[in-house]
Amino acid sequence: MTALADVLATLAARRTESLAELLEFASIPSVSAQSQYTPDMLRAANWLMARLKQCGGGQRGGLNVELWATEGHPAVYAEWLGAPDAPTVLVYGHYDVQPPEPLERWNTLPFSPTVLGDRVYGRGVSDDKGPLLIAVQVADAYFSATGGLPVNVKFLFEGEEEIGSAHLPALVAENSERLRADFVLSADGGMWSAETPSLTVSARGLAALEFTVRGPAKDLHSGRHGGSLQNPLHAISQLVASLHADGRVAVEGFYDGVTERTPDERSATAQLPFSDEAYLAQTGAPGTFGEAGFSTLERQWDRPTLELNGLWGGYTGEGSKTVLPSEAHAKVTCRLVPGQTPERIPALIGAHLRRHLPPGVTLEVRPSEHSASAYHIPADHPGRRVAREVLEQVYGAPPLEVGMGGSIPVLETFQKVLGIDTVFFSFAVGDEDIHAPNEFFRIPRIAEGHQAWARYLDRLAHHHE
Amino acid sequence: MTALADVLATLAARRTESLAELLEFASIPSVSAQSQYTPDMLRAANWLMARLKQCGGGQRGGLNVELWATEGHPAVYAEWLGAPDAPTVLVYGHYDVQPPEPLERWNTLPFSPTVLGDRVYGRGVSDDKGPLLIAVQVADAYFSATGGLPVNVKFLFEGEEEIGSAHLPALVAENSERLRADFVLSADGGMWSAETPSLTVSARGLAALEFTVRGPAKDLHSGRHGGSLQNPLHAISQLVASLHADGRVAVEGFYDGVTERTPDERSATAQLPFSDEAYLAQTGAPGTFGEAGFSTLERQWDRPTLELNGLWGGYTGEGSKTVLPSEAHAKVTCRLVPGQTPERIPALIGAHLRRHLPPGVTLEVRPSEHSASAYHIPADHPGRRVAREVLEQVYGAPPLEVGMGGSIPVLETFQKVLGIDTVFFSFAVGDEDIHAPNEFFRIPRIAEGHQAWARYLDRLAHHHE
Repeated sequence: MTALADVLATLAARRTESLAELLEFASIPSVSAQSQYTPDMLRAANWLMARLKQCGGGQRGGLNVELWATEGHPAVYAEWLGAPDAPTVLVYGHYDVQPPEPLERWNTLPFSPTVLGDRVYGRGVSDDKGPLLIAVQVADAYFSATGGLPVNVKFLFEGEEEIGSAHLPALVAENSERLRADFVLSADGGMWSAETPSLTVSARGLAALEFTVRGPAKDLHSGRHGGSLQNPLHAISQLVASLHADGRVAVEGFYDGVTERTPDERSATAQLPFSDEAYLAQTGAPGTFGEAGFSTLERQWDRPTLELNGLWGGYTGEGSKTVLPSEAHAKVTCRLVPGQTPERIPALIGAHLRRHLPPGVTLEVRPSEHSASAYHIPADHPGRRVAREVLEQVYGAPPLEVGMGGSIPVLETFQKVLGIDTVFFSFAVGDEDIHAPNEFFRIPRIAEGHQAWARYLDRLAHHHE
Repeated sequence: MTALADVLATLAARRTESLAELLEFASIPSVSAQSQYTPDMLRAANWLMARLKQCGGGQRGGLNVELWATEGHPAVYAEWLGAPDAPTVLVYGHYDVQPPEPLERWNTLPFSPTVLGDRVYGRGVSDDKGPLLIAVQVADAYFSATGGLPVNVKFLFEGEEEIGSAHLPALVAENSERLRADFVLSADGGMWSAETPSLTVSARGLAALEFTVRGPAKDLHSGRHGGSLQNPLHAISQLVASLHADGRVAVEGFYDGVTERTPDERSATAQLPFSDEAYLAQTGAPGTFGEAGFSTLERQWDRPTLELNGLWGGYTGEGSKTVLPSEAHAKVTCRLVPGQTPERIPALIGAHLRRHLPPGVTLEVRPSEHSASAYHIPADHPGRRVAREVLEQVYGAPPLEVGMGGSIPVLETFQKVLGIDTVFFSFAVGDEDIHAPNEFFRIPRIAEGHQAWARYLDRLAHHHE
């Protein structure tokens, strides 16, 4: 048997154990956005460090594991540099998860991961604890089966991806020597469909802001005062409504610099197996809606957006409360495409909001640190080629090359600071309700991911030969 | 000494005790809108019954006290009919209070009533526990000082005023014989200024509804899906923004039947001591805003309104969550003036919302039972005349006759079912942050209310002579 065959056999023998590890990892509520979970963030980091140290049975010669502090949540770093003639791979992932709210919409407890059929349900199982563990388990199998890894491997698992990776650029810059690598593989991301293997070659960027509209200094009785003062809920609705017109963002300058894709590129997207009908059945939305002249996939991958993620003010509880509230609030994120920058877009929106502010209220705009530029991995990138080949081996067909509507800020960091393009190599699927109630991960993907990662590392070892 | 003088002396001797009773009553969190407080609603009703039974030392010949069940929260009823030749007064009030939220904005605990200077702070102290207790304490003083009351008195204290008095019309209709009276005095309401005594002669009506906008069947990731589906937060903002134009309600038919006031009436309002500058200083709002062509007082008393009381959807917690939410919600109340009905207005709004619904979402409109017609007590009503005289005696100047922006649904019930106009006779003041954090009641008003209620009952005894 070859070394690769030994590794694959080891992984196959450990399937139950691999799933059990995910259940354990995902039971730690590592919610980076909410301070009440800060102790759990540290528990999750410690769990991950222990799992990394255990690779190869925890003996000398395994991974060197470190906790890297930041001004926010720490990152977990591990490395093995025992193959001086082979290339070096940096593996990226994140151990933090989205908040579980709204809790009442979950069918299982978000932090009691639950197996139902061939899925495991729980916050973070798909984004990103399941995909991240696959890479770790493959390294472990290599150590067990062969006593080492076929290439040098560096793992960098951050704890702030879900809140914008604010401290990662500084961390990567400070440790740029140690993080030096030939390839970056991201265990975050996700295939766009459960039926067809795919390789993600682009991601939209991100810019975020919040704003608050303030009227009276305190909540007032809407009977006594209604009609004589501007209601912040009316004002914020007018502001939000002013941000779009006919499915297009109405902020002046928003589309400046955005280039249209070529007819060939648009045609490739149009040929992908996708139907609006199936999409609506999947999402339960009553219809598609967006910018005129673009298909649903183009609207998701290639066009910029401005989306409200939260809007609130006044009384939102049970029953009635006749209040004219003092304040109203909105959270906004934009998805960016090449030609837009995460610095300029919030400034344009702030100017638009100030220009459209109704009388009788004041406005506060708070840009967020949560940002990323749009990303695209070149077609001739060797890591992209290897990924295509490996996915074809595992799935028996070449992967579709697709875009990604979401954003992974760290890609920009690796490109700017380390000078390396990142290959998305996650075995999550985009429909797994990440960032929503009832997030799940497909259990067969663990075995598929094991095979693919094992083959990827094996192929990279021969890349320079 | 006259009987009245004895009563006033008794009340003066009981001032400390009277305040202590309010502190005890207001420490019971009788929030009618929230089901978690249902046991406290019953505690408050029991406390009030015990207090009523204690009138006159709890001896035979005092008040006959009963708990009147409804399909919702019960009402407390008490009567004394020992003056067959004198008129009968029905006293109205409510023992339920508004929800205390937002809790973080209170400087004291809402249900630990706290005396600071000449104010007592706590939920319900002004609306309506303080004003209600004044009437009970006056009855008690009459029993103690004179062995009885100068007129027949019926107390009806409901437990659903803050949620729209939905079950009161049926209760009043079922008990219309027992509730028969010559006058209704409302211990709910409030004077419009702390400096000048006033008599409220009109109140706006109320109509309420909630609506929900639904898009995808579940919350989605706004990166993956944003731009290709209608965002319910965008749609609800457009709907809310469509409800007004230039400070005027833009719902078709909304102003139908609304009559303009006469130049004399408008001139009387214009002469009241009121300044926008002082009003803005009091409310902390950056400017007044409303329907063009009307003063602030006219906008509050004489013009109908459509106000959002709550608006919410998506992620409203700490940090960021890139969600395209499944639903967005709004709570609306309208204040009505003569010519509008609480049945027709929600129907007009529902039709407007359906007509303006953006593509890609569905709409559910839920009219509320919370409603009231606008109210006006005739200028020649004898109860209004007596109130003028008594207030002039207590304060040394004739009261201003003012309107009320808020609504007291029960007034309509008393008019329709019992055929009696209600006189507002509350010693709360409209600036006491009712329905808001840091609700307070002015402690000197307890003594003033005692004097006024004692004199009022005394005058009514001689009304028919």
